[in-house]
Amino acid sequence: MRLYESSVSGNCYKVRLLAAQLGLELERVELSVIDRSDREAVLGGKNPGLRVPTLELDDGRTLGESDAILWFLADGTPLVPDEPFERAQVLQWCFFEQYSHEPFVAVARFWVAILGRYDEDALAERQQGAHTALRAMERHLADRSYLVGERYSIADIALYAYTHVAPEGGIDLDAYPAVRRWLARVAAQPGHVAITA
Amino acid sequence: MRLYESSVSGNCYKVRLLAAQLGLELERVELSVIDRSDREAVLGGKNPGLRVPTLELDDGRTLGESDAILWFLADGTPLVPDEPFERAQVLQWCFFEQYSHEPFVAVARFWVAILGRYDEDALAERQQGAHTALRAMERHLADRSYLVGERYSIADIALYAYTHVAPEGGIDLDAYPAVRRWLARVAAQPGHVAITA
Repeated sequence: MRLYESSVSGNCYKVRLLAAQLGLELERVELSVIDRSDREAVLGGKNPGLRVPTLELDDGRTLGESDAILWFLADGTPLVPDEPFERAQVLQWCFFEQYSHEPFVAVARFWVAILGRYDEDALAERQQGAHTALRAMERHLADRSYLVGERYSIADIALYAYTHVAPEGGIDLDAYPAVRRWLARVAAQPGHVAITA
Repeated sequence: MRLYESSVSGNCYKVRLLAAQLGLELERVELSVIDRSDREAVLGGKNPGLRVPTLELDDGRTLGESDAILWFLADGTPLVPDEPFERAQVLQWCFFEQYSHEPFVAVARFWVAILGRYDEDALAERQQGAHTALRAMERHLADRSYLVGERYSIADIALYAYTHVAPEGGIDLDAYPAVRRWLARVAAQPGHVAITA
C-alpha cells in the first residue's frame, strides 16, 4: 500500500501509527503542507478533498480522510470493537476529532510550529476552541482508561495524534490530568511509534 | 428513541430523514441553535460536544455526531453497503462532509438565513470554502448517480442535508449541474421528507 502524506501532519501520523501496530507496510510519498501547488496533479482522481493522507491500495483503489482510512485498515482487528453501539461510539469520537478538535488543536500547531506565521487574534480563537475540546475529553476520561469500551481503539489513535503535540501550538495540557494519563497509556501500547518516526 | 435536535439544523435533518426512510419513530426534543445556554444542562453527560443532534436510545444510552448516528441506525440496512471498501468510502464522504463541507456551507447558511448577522469578509471566506467543496462533489458526481457504489446510502443523506439549502447561504448551485441532478435523485427516494418536516 502507498500512503500519500506529509510527515509533520498528525492526520498522516494516525495512519503510520496504526500501520505499525497492525504490522502493515506502507510506501510513503511525501507531499508538502506548505506548497500545495502539486495537489491536483498528485491527488486529483485519488481523493476528492485533495488532502493528505490518501491511501492507495495495491490494486489502485484510493481512499481519503484519515479516520476513514483508520476504520478501513482496522475493522476486523481488536482496534475496532465488534459491538454495534461501541462501533458507533468510536465513530462519534472520530467525528468529534475532525469537527471539534482538529480544526483548533491542529491548526494552532500548524501556524505556530510549522508555518511560523499567524494572526494573534485568530490564534487565540483556535486555542480557545482547542481548550473546549480538551475539556470535553477531560470530563470523559476522568473515570475511563480509553475513549470507548475501556479498550484501546482507533478512536484513541485519532485523538492522540494532535492532542499529544498540542503544546507545540501553545495549548497547555497542565489543566487536563486525565488527558495526560490517557496520553501516557496510549504511548505505552505495544508497537507505538512517535510522530517523528 | 429520543432525538435532541434543532429543527432548522441540517445535521439534525439527516437523522429525521433517515428515520423516516427506515420507519423509525423519534421523539423530538427541540433545542435552540441561537441561545445555547441550556446545552450543558440538557446534553451534559449525553454528548461530549454538547451539540445537536444527540440520540438517546430507549435504554438511556446516548450518541452524538450526526454521521455517527446515521451509521448506527443504518448499518445492516441497504443504506450502508456490505463491502468493506465501499463502507470506508461512505465514511470518507461523511468525514469530507464534516470537515470540508459543513463548516462552510452550513455556517454561511446559519449566518445569512438563521442568525441574520455576519461579517461580510468572513461570509465571503465561508462561501469560497463552500464552492471548493461543491467543485469536488461536481467532479465526483459527473459520471455517477450517487456518491458511493451507484446506490443511495447515508453518504448521500449526509451531503444532501446542507447542499440542498446552500442557496439560503448565498451559495449558488448553478455551476454544478451534476450536483443538482444528484439532489433531485436523492429527493426522489421513497420516504423522502423535507427539512421542514
